[in-house]
Amino acid sequence: MEFGIQFFPDVGPAQKSAEIYWQECLHLTGLCDELGLTHVRTVEHYFHAYGGYSTNPLIFLAAASQRTQKARLITGAILPVFNHPLKVAGEIGMMDAISGGRLEVGFARAFLPHEFRRFGRSMDESRARFDEGMEQIRRLLEEEHVTMHGQFHSFEDVTSLPRPVQKPRPPFWIAASSTPASYEIAGRLGHWLMTIPRTPQQIGEWMGIYRDAWRKAGHPGQGRVMIAFHMFCAPTHEEAVAKAREHVNAYYHTLADAAADWGAGARSKDYPNHPQMIEGLRNTSFEKQVENGAAFVGSPDEVIEQITRFDKAVGGFEDASLQVNFNTIDARTAEASMRLFAEKVMPHIDKAAVNAAAG
Amino acid sequence: MEFGIQFFPDVGPAQKSAEIYWQECLHLTGLCDELGLTHVRTVEHYFHAYGGYSTNPLIFLAAASQRTQKARLITGAILPVFNHPLKVAGEIGMMDAISGGRLEVGFARAFLPHEFRRFGRSMDESRARFDEGMEQIRRLLEEEHVTMHGQFHSFEDVTSLPRPVQKPRPPFWIAASSTPASYEIAGRLGHWLMTIPRTPQQIGEWMGIYRDAWRKAGHPGQGRVMIAFHMFCAPTHEEAVAKAREHVNAYYHTLADAAADWGAGARSKDYPNHPQMIEGLRNTSFEKQVENGAAFVGSPDEVIEQITRFDKAVGGFEDASLQVNFNTIDARTAEASMRLFAEKVMPHIDKAAVNAAAG
Repeated sequence: MEFGIQFFPDVGPAQKSAEIYWQECLHLTGLCDELGLTHVRTVEHYFHAYGGYSTNPLIFLAAASQRTQKARLITGAILPVFNHPLKVAGEIGMMDAISGGRLEVGFARAFLPHEFRRFGRSMDESRARFDEGMEQIRRLLEEEHVTMHGQFHSFEDVTSLPRPVQKPRPPFWIAASSTPASYEIAGRLGHWLMTIPRTPQQIGEWMGIYRDAWRKAGHPGQGRVMIAFHMFCAPTHEEAVAKAREHVNAYYHTLADAAADWGAGARSKDYPNHPQMIEGLRNTSFEKQVENGAAFVGSPDEVIEQITRFDKAVGGFEDASLQVNFNTIDARTAEASMRLFAEKVMPHIDKAAVNAAAG
Repeated sequence: MEFGIQFFPDVGPAQKSAEIYWQECLHLTGLCDELGLTHVRTVEHYFHAYGGYSTNPLIFLAAASQRTQKARLITGAILPVFNHPLKVAGEIGMMDAISGGRLEVGFARAFLPHEFRRFGRSMDESRARFDEGMEQIRRLLEEEHVTMHGQFHSFEDVTSLPRPVQKPRPPFWIAASSTPASYEIAGRLGHWLMTIPRTPQQIGEWMGIYRDAWRKAGHPGQGRVMIAFHMFCAPTHEEAVAKAREHVNAYYHTLADAAADWGAGARSKDYPNHPQMIEGLRNTSFEKQVENGAAFVGSPDEVIEQITRFDKAVGGFEDASLQVNFNTIDARTAEASMRLFAEKVMPHIDKAAVNAAAG
């Protein structure tokens, strides 16, 4: 298993300015090479404390590329529905150049009704826009003369610049949450999978769909799965809980607020399970998240046990993407947690066992 | 007068990879604080060696922000016609945060028919899309609850995040080339002006339109004008010419190729003077550019004389934005030129006289 860090801002101007938030993220990014953290990831969201400080993940990742020489830089994720494919392809090429070929590109469908409403997009076009957008971006990166006539975007004889450093293009990740079809598509297309934990049983089932589709399509190996977790490590259980509990709860409170339209009756054929999923997240808590393995919080020994248990329950996964400064956790506090994690947890995660499980 | 550097890639994969190009630009950016260069600037273009390595200037500027602590980071320029205002406003807020409030935002209308064609935009909508886009972005940055119903984009009750560090927003520059109305609009709206040199007489006339409009609108002072130049300084005239000549010519050759549609009959009511302007650039040469003061090339004494002469001829201007690694000039060669310029030229540009001329 590899570990990286994910920055998912869930603060607004009343809690922490974007200037302080991003400067703290850059400081923490600067620890990655020393601590053996192998990726840095951030999101795309808008207009709300839930992610809204990160409107274009590539802008932060470009800055982050200057604070780490080794870590992969991962969008988690770009939203084709709100972006022009010609623009995104060009930005990916530029960022792959600036980072010396360290970019990996996660794509997601988006899921917050308020973002669709403000961009004037129908949620019922979510799947169609995602599929078309990602395919257009893929071809713009892989091919040198591209003509495509789509339902949403068309263009003729385009050579997207810059040509990517990585050939044929940076790896793609597909973000899936509660729509099983997304797992199947990711596997079939041979892309890697990024998801968020619910119960290990649920995640394990969906990962099975992904790995099966991967193998059925004839791709070598079984794909690659990244799961995002809250992580807070302290010398004692009590200290970890005391420092992390309110911030985990605040994170889910912010998410529930951003997604409130689902509770207020928003429905879309493209999101059959989202009302139920959001209702579940609205009723979650720090205790439930730790119990389900969605938050790694505790002493080093506890965190080792939490990671190992989750990994076994889902049949092994490749990348853990750790939220280390969620909500208003400051950089110094997050750094102490990260350093303890790197020193006392990471060496004890049994890489051989995990690799065996992952085949 | 202040000096900064501008990266305007005019190479394609056959000349230099984007990876090498941008790594060299980052190295040169790292010299700014030491050499007293006060800005770093880059462009937005697509699909062609003329600028196409820089599809989103904010991505490079984000990386550049980590290589200089002092320099202002300037888009030169963002093209509203190819971007969604909600997206651009969010990116500006993010970049202003990451750079600690050092962002300045130049906007331009774009002028290459091939870019309009591939994005499916009419050149006859250029002015309308520019005016609407910039106004929407301005309000999204300055106000916290914005509803706008435009000809091209509409949105309701939007709070753009992140809120800018600079209040009410980062300074705006308007890029103008050969359309006198653009100079008048920039001055009237109280934005700063970025342009490219033709003859000093022509530039002086258009700057007069800008400064007059600025004063008539009641803005304090007389505005701020940035002019872009090719710059190459070497110990002797012969060495400077030998090292810069072919690269200046290649730059204009690349531009002429990118703009070839104008020569092939492209016409638009929004670009009345562009066919003539492009024809002029197609017939230009290194010698004409140096003669007109559009390229500062020579020994330190010659460059001092070229800058002083140009400055006086146009009545004084505030920022010179220097292209230092145009075409295939490598980083080591550009660095030697920049160091000589900083040591032997900059101290001898008479700041007092220029400031007096600028009123």
